Amino acid sequence: MLQTNIDQGDLQDQRIKDYRSPLGVTHTETVTLPGIQTESGFAFDQIEVSYQTLGTLSPRRDNAILICHALSGNAHVAGIHPETGRPGWWDFHVGPGKAIDTDRFFVVCANVLGGCDGTTGPISLHPQTGKPYGMDFPAVSVNDMVTVQAKLLDHLGIEQLFAVTGGSMGGMQALAWTVNLPNRVRVCVPIATCVAHNALQIAFNEIGRRAIMDDPNWNGGIYTPGCRPKQGLAVARMVGHVTYLSEYAMTRKFGRKLQPQINPADADEALFAVESYLHHQGKSFVDRFDPNSYLYLTKALDQFDLFGGQPPESVLSLVTARFLVISFASDWLYPPAQSRELVRLLKRARAVVTYINLETLYGHDSFLIENPEFSNVLRHYLENEYRAATFEERGAGI
Amino acid sequence: MLQTNIDQGDLQDQRIKDYRSPLGVTHTETVTLPGIQTESGFAFDQIEVSYQTLGTLSPRRDNAILICHALSGNAHVAGIHPETGRPGWWDFHVGPGKAIDTDRFFVVCANVLGGCDGTTGPISLHPQTGKPYGMDFPAVSVNDMVTVQAKLLDHLGIEQLFAVTGGSMGGMQALAWTVNLPNRVRVCVPIATCVAHNALQIAFNEIGRRAIMDDPNWNGGIYTPGCRPKQGLAVARMVGHVTYLSEYAMTRKFGRKLQPQINPADADEALFAVESYLHHQGKSFVDRFDPNSYLYLTKALDQFDLFGGQPPESVLSLVTARFLVISFASDWLYPPAQSRELVRLLKRARAVVTYINLETLYGHDSFLIENPEFSNVLRHYLENEYRAATFEERGAGI
Repeated sequence: MLQTNIDQGDLQDQRIKDYRSPLGVTHTETVTLPGIQTESGFAFDQIEVSYQTLGTLSPRRDNAILICHALSGNAHVAGIHPETGRPGWWDFHVGPGKAIDTDRFFVVCANVLGGCDGTTGPISLHPQTGKPYGMDFPAVSVNDMVTVQAKLLDHLGIEQLFAVTGGSMGGMQALAWTVNLPNRVRVCVPIATCVAHNALQIAFNEIGRRAIMDDPNWNGGIYTPGCRPKQGLAVARMVGHVTYLSEYAMTRKFGRKLQPQINPADADEALFAVESYLHHQGKSFVDRFDPNSYLYLTKALDQFDLFGGQPPESVLSLVTARFLVISFASDWLYPPAQSRELVRLLKRARAVVTYINLETLYGHDSFLIENPEFSNVLRHYLENEYRAATFEERGAGI
Repeated sequence: MLQTNIDQGDLQDQRIKDYRSPLGVTHTETVTLPGIQTESGFAFDQIEVSYQTLGTLSPRRDNAILICHALSGNAHVAGIHPETGRPGWWDFHVGPGKAIDTDRFFVVCANVLGGCDGTTGPISLHPQTGKPYGMDFPAVSVNDMVTVQAKLLDHLGIEQLFAVTGGSMGGMQALAWTVNLPNRVRVCVPIATCVAHNALQIAFNEIGRRAIMDDPNWNGGIYTPGCRPKQGLAVARMVGHVTYLSEYAMTRKFGRKLQPQINPADADEALFAVESYLHHQGKSFVDRFDPNSYLYLTKALDQFDLFGGQPPESVLSLVTARFLVISFASDWLYPPAQSRELVRLLKRARAVVTYINLETLYGHDSFLIENPEFSNVLRHYLENEYRAATFEERGAGI
């Protein structure tokens, strides 16, 4: 539990310093892949992709799991980052003996198209101008992200994924895999996600975009590293952060605790600990995320529609994957009702679906927080499905 | 239900044009009252207060109901505004034969201290400089608002209120009346409110404040009418507006409906109807609200603590009012759990409390939306309590 007399950032840093990952230091690589045409009609000649692999691809090439990251994630999914010293965003799930067992599975995680951590995105240089794309970057979709991931798998020699998984925006990509490339995925584990954003989800994203674009430093998307729309992006992150937490989590962490040594009459200063925490979250995000990328990725989220306006039955009739759908009871941003709707549609299309709503208390953030029940569910499902799949392939062990 | 092919603002304007109030045109007055000392230690020499009265004060002066407004409200509680043509913010509850029956009750509603609609606030001129106070305005509290309202009642010759009521910030004022001036109020109807903000409520307010103060036009609170921090205030309002609505209301109103004639690739334009609606809400708020006032009032909200750090039992032991506590099932900003906590504390202090959680679907905004069940509950409670009070005073009718 956080203390009010310690700066939240320092505490976070101390925790990270003490953290040990059984994977040790892990690296990301960058590869230049053949270009794609986006759904919006733009043709990339080539695309850079930053990715990480963990574990070993089996001789049968049947043990690959693609992990798709959420809005603010990146390719560094597990192990310790060689420069920042920080653990990957899903280190608690991914590693030897963990739920996604790197002794058994070959894990792939790549920064998405439109991102800002090594994969082609708005901060990349436009080949025709030699300057960052900025807002000349084409609109990208979740489907485009999946198309690029498929090119990466081609490069890695993986014809079929054993599984694809991810939370939030990562869950949308996982779902899109099963529809767009049904023959290339056996198992899909979408977590805390939906088939399409509702008005509330769109509204919160739009507030974040508005805050960024209202920042004079945004300047139509043309800014230099020294003069970025930091304040607008910080507000966007603060909005996001609040929606990721539950009321319970905020009450337990902060309640009405005060920041010390503050003049309550000064409206410009944080009075409550929760305000200081949000400021810190906003500021630290600004150092690692590109504001234009935030605009593009949130638009991709809002415009995602698994069925693309078609009847769900006809779209899902092509799907062959088996599903484990996971939601969190306290998630009010991607509420369990959205996962239940997904399950209902999948079942109606005669897909094999397991569904669990985990009784966690930490809101949408639950998919990023260590939780033995969550890990056990994921571990057992993947083990059983992998055993069944390999048993099937090997001809019932004869 | 809103249509996507009509601009939300136009539709709203059409509805307002067609609206008829049995009160007809109503007016607000302004009075200069003796000053007060704020809890923060500032001494006002005098205070201007904008207020509205409706109905007639009885010869016994026992039929006054004070209605306290919420964050963005004002003194114009019912009837048609002579200049804007808009109905008062609680017209559906207040008028002849309505829940707060102006044939029976004398209604008073005043713009709060720190507001921006006629009562002394940050846009008022500082007597020493002749310029607007801006951020030199002292920190104000909900208790200070109540102190000013009491001065207004002195001016109107009302020793004791029959009732005090209000929703959200108005509910906090109503509760503060029963604690600060227990002998001056018989009945209290706090609606969709709480005894103190939780971390989530503080967090959303802080995001709004941050957006305002990050706007370069805010300029430390010194701005001219032609150069106000409109964009920051609009973002703050958008955040507020989203938290006032329920997921159901947003889904029903907007879902994923698109704005017509928009290029989906243009991240700067509203694609979804909900985005356009939020933009409209933000922009129209900017024309009628002062950004500094927004900072001061949200700070007053966040810092409100009915018990001021004292044990609730000892604070409430002085309370003599009878209570009707109302919450709304779909209100996730001021959730029913906060009202239940209030009820629990009042009951423990042996106060007479009636509690109802109304099964509305429209979130926190429910207290501003016409609803027969809500009106009936309020009407019957006030009628019964008034009958009992007058019966008591007249000596059981003998």
